[in-house]
Amino acid sequence: MLHGVIMAGGAGTRFWPMSRERRPKQLLALVTGRTLLEEAVARLEGLIPYGRIHVLTNGMYAGEIRNRLPEIPSNQVVAEPCGRDTAACIGLASAMIARLDPDGVLAVLPADHVIEPRASFQGALAAAARAISQQPGSLLTFGIPPSRPATGYGYIERGPEIGQAEGRAFFRVDSFREKPDAQTAARFLEQGNFLWNAGIFVFRARTLLSSLERHLPELADRLPLILESLDRTGAIPEPLYAALPKVSIDYGVLEREREVLVIQADFEWDDVGSFAALERVLPGDAAGNRALGRVLALDAAGNVAIAGADHQLALIGVKDLVVVHTADATLVCRKQDAERVKELVERLRSEQLDELL
Amino acid sequence: MLHGVIMAGGAGTRFWPMSRERRPKQLLALVTGRTLLEEAVARLEGLIPYGRIHVLTNGMYAGEIRNRLPEIPSNQVVAEPCGRDTAACIGLASAMIARLDPDGVLAVLPADHVIEPRASFQGALAAAARAISQQPGSLLTFGIPPSRPATGYGYIERGPEIGQAEGRAFFRVDSFREKPDAQTAARFLEQGNFLWNAGIFVFRARTLLSSLERHLPELADRLPLILESLDRTGAIPEPLYAALPKVSIDYGVLEREREVLVIQADFEWDDVGSFAALERVLPGDAAGNRALGRVLALDAAGNVAIAGADHQLALIGVKDLVVVHTADATLVCRKQDAERVKELVERLRSEQLDELL
Repeated sequence: MLHGVIMAGGAGTRFWPMSRERRPKQLLALVTGRTLLEEAVARLEGLIPYGRIHVLTNGMYAGEIRNRLPEIPSNQVVAEPCGRDTAACIGLASAMIARLDPDGVLAVLPADHVIEPRASFQGALAAAARAISQQPGSLLTFGIPPSRPATGYGYIERGPEIGQAEGRAFFRVDSFREKPDAQTAARFLEQGNFLWNAGIFVFRARTLLSSLERHLPELADRLPLILESLDRTGAIPEPLYAALPKVSIDYGVLEREREVLVIQADFEWDDVGSFAALERVLPGDAAGNRALGRVLALDAAGNVAIAGADHQLALIGVKDLVVVHTADATLVCRKQDAERVKELVERLRSEQLDELL
Repeated sequence: MLHGVIMAGGAGTRFWPMSRERRPKQLLALVTGRTLLEEAVARLEGLIPYGRIHVLTNGMYAGEIRNRLPEIPSNQVVAEPCGRDTAACIGLASAMIARLDPDGVLAVLPADHVIEPRASFQGALAAAARAISQQPGSLLTFGIPPSRPATGYGYIERGPEIGQAEGRAFFRVDSFREKPDAQTAARFLEQGNFLWNAGIFVFRARTLLSSLERHLPELADRLPLILESLDRTGAIPEPLYAALPKVSIDYGVLEREREVLVIQADFEWDDVGSFAALERVLPGDAAGNRALGRVLALDAAGNVAIAGADHQLALIGVKDLVVVHTADATLVCRKQDAERVKELVERLRSEQLDELL
């Protein structure tokens, strides 16, 4: 059976002042009236029932996530006592699900991406699950056909077609590439056989656990003890989890496996890496302003503006800015500086403005 | 004796979102922790006692002004039932003061300008009062030596020196000039004998009333009836006041008088016409950002930013913007568009966002 594993542990300081230590990006309603996490769960509706969805997150967010997602059994919202990157998180999920469903297949999904339309996404997931039933020993990734020479993503080099599932081809992965420089990214875009690695994976729980035993045995070996502690106490002891190797599933497992498959996504995908990315996913006015909430623009163009429902934002003459209002703080920056919000958060930290973190 | 007459009736939409229909510019703390009106009153401290200060204002603001200035006898905060420009306002003040003090001299002062330092200002007012005691039949204005070819002010053409008072020369006014075009303003600046008309006047109440009888008899004739109504009912009947001619003191009286004097100001003066003007009167950081309240700037330069004490404003990379946060609205505009805030207020009105007006 197909199980959903939503990774919702990310901190993320690139959405300050909306995001805070206790309110990370996946808990923000950046695009619709629902948080990105709620959208990620809703995206599975009809394909995977709530009873087969696990959400892995940081202990700081688990309470709010259980409140927001009451349909998900509360012991399936799993609180990591500390962040150990994706290999540990996915390993833990695989171990939990392998116990419940020895032949279970996982769809591993980030909580904070924007994916549209839902039908294409579900079709692709179903095809991926079918491909895995044909090739149960493989790990499968989703590749997003690039629309620009992005330097912020890892790339997947698509190899030969291996087979078809539900009318979609799946391919062997020839190589994984780290975030490229601009020139390399341009070449990838031109060549056409390079895809963005969206961090969406499909595989059997058992297959992943075998992979971990081969490539990260110090992780695989500790998972049974962690599960046992979780069963006994309802929580994962921090020292046990902190002892796990901190490595990504890409670097720790996928890049070391010979048989990794990739399906090309036919859905729209955006990881919404910063406020500037919202211009790709929010509806705009004639002047290209993208707004959430009450925004009035007078000869202003190309801005991303977020005001909320009880505050009026007024823009005159400005271009290509990000303006974000929250109850206690407002950000005004150039779109091109949107990534620098992280620096700003560091400034707040160094100036001990803790109430704003 | 010298009486202070502070004109505090202006509406002013150029400081939205700080200014609102019920909170005009003179009631904003734009530069210091005190409102401009409170600063205007404080500026007279030691020269004119509270008991000889009148504040003329719009009925909508009179309550708040009495609260803010409890030292001023409340019947000396005079509520105009409607705005009839400065000739009516100053005529009314002159009539009131002439009754109290037949030889009284008025210093007529706008409530919403920034003037520094206080000592120079008081010295200049004292010299003006002395000049009027020498030339009791004259009206006297203050001229500000221009520091730039401003097109937004009226100009005074300074004529020959008439005399000295307390070590300061006073001059005859050769002509009053309306707001000039850019070329004319540049010529005025170059010629050196043109001064900005700051709207600060000194004259005997009786002299002004005689002038009104000559130049605006339909105004002068109605003042006794208005005073009588005010005495009897505590308020000015709207129909009486609305019947007064609506004309400025400059156009209606000063420009028609032969004997007008001018003293050159040796104080710093700014009428703070828009948020952009705040860069001339607020202290700045090394990058030329002028801030009031909690503002953090990261590679931002030349901005005017107002946040208040309980809200953090964060700027990254932006230049030459005006950013103003208030509880229910935030403005982001280019400094060069600061005057267009008026248009924005019209937009709010046309979109019936009355709670923001």
